[in-house]
Amino acid sequence: MVVLNKLYTRTGDKGDTALGNGTRVAKNDPRVEAYGTSDELNAIVGLARLHAEGVIDQQLSRIQNDLFDLGADLCQPDMEKDDQAEYPPLRMVMTQVERLETEIDEMTAVLEPLRSFILPGGSALSAYLHQCRTVARRAERLTVALAAEEPINPAAVKYLNRLSDWFFAAARMANDKGRSDVLWVPGANRE
Amino acid sequence: MVVLNKLYTRTGDKGDTALGNGTRVAKNDPRVEAYGTSDELNAIVGLARLHAEGVIDQQLSRIQNDLFDLGADLCQPDMEKDDQAEYPPLRMVMTQVERLETEIDEMTAVLEPLRSFILPGGSALSAYLHQCRTVARRAERLTVALAAEEPINPAAVKYLNRLSDWFFAAARMANDKGRSDVLWVPGANRE
Amino acid sequence: MVVLNKLYTRTGDKGDTALGNGTRVAKNDPRVEAYGTSDELNAIVGLARLHAEGVIDQQLSRIQNDLFDLGADLCQPDMEKDDQAEYPPLRMVMTQVERLETEIDEMTAVLEPLRSFILPGGSALSAYLHQCRTVARRAERLTVALAAEEPINPAAVKYLNRLSDWFFAAARMANDKGRSDVLWVPGANRE
Ligand code: B12
Ligand code: B12
Ligand code: B12
Ligand SMILES: C[C@H]1O[C@@H](n2cnc3c(N)ncnc32)[C@H](O)[C@@H]1O
Ligand SMILES: C[C@H]1O[C@@H](n2cnc3c(N)ncnc32)[C@H](O)[C@@H]1O
Ligand SMILES: C[C@H]1O[C@@H](n2cnc3c(N)ncnc32)[C@H](O)[C@@H]1O
Ligand SMILES: [Mg+2]
Ligand SMILES: [Mg+2]
Ligand SMILES: [Mg+2]
Repeated sequence: MVVLNKLYTRTGDKGDTALGNGTRVAKNDPRVEAYGTSDELNAIVGLARLHAEGVIDQQLSRIQNDLFDLGADLCQPDMEKDDQAEYPPLRMVMTQVERLETEIDEMTAVLEPLRSFILPGGSALSAYLHQCRTVARRAERLTVALAAEEPINPAAVKYLNRLSDWFFAAARMANDKGRSDVLWVPGANRE
Repeated sequence: MVVLNKLYTRTGDKGDTALGNGTRVAKNDPRVEAYGTSDELNAIVGLARLHAEGVIDQQLSRIQNDLFDLGADLCQPDMEKDDQAEYPPLRMVMTQVERLETEIDEMTAVLEPLRSFILPGGSALSAYLHQCRTVARRAERLTVALAAEEPINPAAVKYLNRLSDWFFAAARMANDKGRSDVLWVPGANRE
Repeated sequence: MVVLNKLYTRTGDKGDTALGNGTRVAKNDPRVEAYGTSDELNAIVGLARLHAEGVIDQQLSRIQNDLFDLGADLCQPDMEKDDQAEYPPLRMVMTQVERLETEIDEMTAVLEPLRSFILPGGSALSAYLHQCRTVARRAERLTVALAAEEPINPAAVKYLNRLSDWFFAAARMANDKGRSDVLWVPGANRE
């Protein structure tokens, strides 16, 4: 169980830190970059929730909890040894990815069809959901960078990939179901 | 023409994705990092616009459209083969850089002169424009990293370089033309 | 003394720039990444201050000033030659780290004890302080990456390490001294 009682320990003052299994690595290790960015994404979801209520707020709350499951997964290396562990690490499961897919399908069913990119922004909620979307994609890039060096749980990358599409659909919902989205006009300001 | 109808395709679940010309690369490829960060910057401009109106809002809208032109430019590699392409890719042009310069000159003409760094913040609009400024600089760093590996359109880097100076001037304008900006006092809190 | 009169010089249009001592480096040099991210953090502190007043606002103001001291430190390489310099560079000192520790201790004394991670968010101030926390950690990772290549002032990393713990305590304070913080429930949404 995670315990937080004494915040600063000074053990990380030289630039190294501990993973979930106790291994010490540099703070700029790809694994720490990956879960550190998932933590940053989680903070931005907290900003979006300042403008959310009802169903969308509950969904964002679930996503925040999921992002800690994701952090727990990413902070535990050596997943090929999971079955030998006394306490098997918490890993992302495909049902978490599928919940996002179901919700995306529900949103897509009511959204205006789209034939160009949309300028991020509009309502406050939509604007923050676009920020979530782009930071989810940054977290995905760093998780893919980690996966190029060490085996990781495939469901982790899938979750992040789906999550940015979820944020896109939700951002459009928050702009009057996409009706007030403003489209990109390629090369509109070249002269 | 960009079409967005089916959001998730699952093709990127293993960590690779397609550039604008169809080439598949890793999601943490320097090119994807560059346009992904331009997209993140675009989302922050969307946040700033929540606090903008009138001329500054129109200027920010133009910048958002430009940032998609920039993304279109960056997602198309092999610019040396542009003249052989059936449909020449959209590329940033110097008139887009020059528009920023003209607007910076206009703002500088009315701003208070400055003799130290300013603490980012003040009015809400100013605070978000400072965030735009620093994320534009992050996008610039990643675009420069890409340029170190592959030839890119020089106007793309110029645009990002000028853009962060534009955001600086605009952030000061939004603080009573710089009159309410608070200066850095070097080493003020060392004892 | 820092002078800002002509914003754009076009000298950086090819992707290189000057450090504090005049040396030219690529804009994606680890040193520029480090102080550029400290600047981004400073901008986010500016956002948090939109929701702060009284003591916490004063503390955030001091942190903003410190972050420019940090930038001044990081932009001056060759710290081993400091004593030969005509004007010794501004460097972070341990009293700045210790001030943070004192403030963390004060906050911890009144905060609810904690036995799991907390979902970032809640009040507006708390939500933005969590964003500060995660960006401080990103700045720390990039500063550690720099330290792996060149000697830097150990107080700089210590300051960033303590700063993210400071933001964590302050974020909890802004949620009714931690009483309204919502805990992570591991694996709550797996089915
Ligand atoms: C990785 C990590 C993070 C990551 C990712 C975490 C995530 N889940 O998303 C991130 C970046 C988010 C993070 C942030 C922070 N963290 Co942290 N984090 C950790 C670390 C290394 C692992 C936590 C984790 O998620 N483990 C996975 C979970 C599922 O594991 P678990 O709950 O322990 O359960 C496993 C075992 O315990 C075992 N088990 C379960 N039950 C039982 C029962 C028995 C009897 C036994 C034997 C075993 C057992 O099986 C489980 C599955 O493997 C811990 C140190 C540690 N090793 O615990 C620090 C740690 C908890 N973090 C710490 C701190 C300070 C923070 C921050 C405040 C830092 C900051 N300033 O931002 C924030 C708080 C964020 C928040 N919102 O609350 C400190 C707390 C210090 C203290 N004592 O107060 C710790 C202890 C590190 C340290 N030594 O400094 N953290
Ligand atoms: C690069 C890219 C991005 C980048 C950068 C784009 C930019 N301009 O800034 C970023 C990161 C922003 C991005 C974001 C997203 N993207 Co995207 N993106 C692409 C990609 C690879 C290229 C788009 C582009 O800008 N092309 C440049 C423009 C100018 O090219 P163009 O309009 O096609 O025009 C050229 C040609 O078409 C040709 N041409 C023009 N007219 C004609 C006419 C004829 C007859 C012919 C033959 C040719 C032709 O000449 C033009 C110049 O070269 C496309 C896939 C693709 N290859 O189209 C996906 C794609 C459009 N994106 C997709 C998605 C899902 C998204 C996001 C929703 C992802 C997310 N969850 O965040 C967001 C939406 C952002 C938003 N705000 O709307 C999907 C859409 C899926 C769908 N069917 O619904 C696509 C199709 C990729 C995919 N297969 O999954 N994207
Ligand atoms: C590093 C740097 C940054 C970094 C970090 C700075 C920090 N402290 O956090 C960051 C990324 C924050 C930054 C941001 C910006 N910067 Co800047 N920055 C610099 C740079 C390279 C060094 C500044 C610095 O902090 N020096 C450390 C301090 C302590 O040094 P100092 O004040 O000069 O004092 C030393 C010496 O002068 C000497 N000394 C002191 N007194 C005396 C007296 C005498 C007689 C003598 C001989 C010597 C001496 O001893 C001191 C200790 O070493 C300068 C260029 C330069 N070399 O000055 C540009 C510079 C000041 N920045 C510039 C610009 C444009 C900006 C931005 C507007 C860019 C943008 N669009 O975002 C922002 C503004 C941010 C803000 N909020 O105000 C321009 C200003 C152009 C102009 N003339 O208007 C400069 C001049 C660079 C350039 N040529 O383009 N910057
Ligand atoms: C919509 C387009 O976005 C790009 N793409 C796919 N994944 C990411 C990511 N994590 N970050 C940035 N860009 C990405 C690809 O080029 C895709 O086709
Ligand atoms: C004002 C100072 O900011 C630094 N500088 C120039 N470009 C960038 C960038 N993209 N990101 C961060 N810092 C930068 C240089 O050191 C310059 O002198
Ligand atoms: C609380 C946990 O956060 C991780 N950790 C320590 N420093 C950083 C940082 N700068 N960025 C991201 N994660 C970090 C370590 O794994 C630590 O144990
Ligand atoms: Mg995707
Ligand atoms: Mg510049
Ligand atoms: Mg720490």
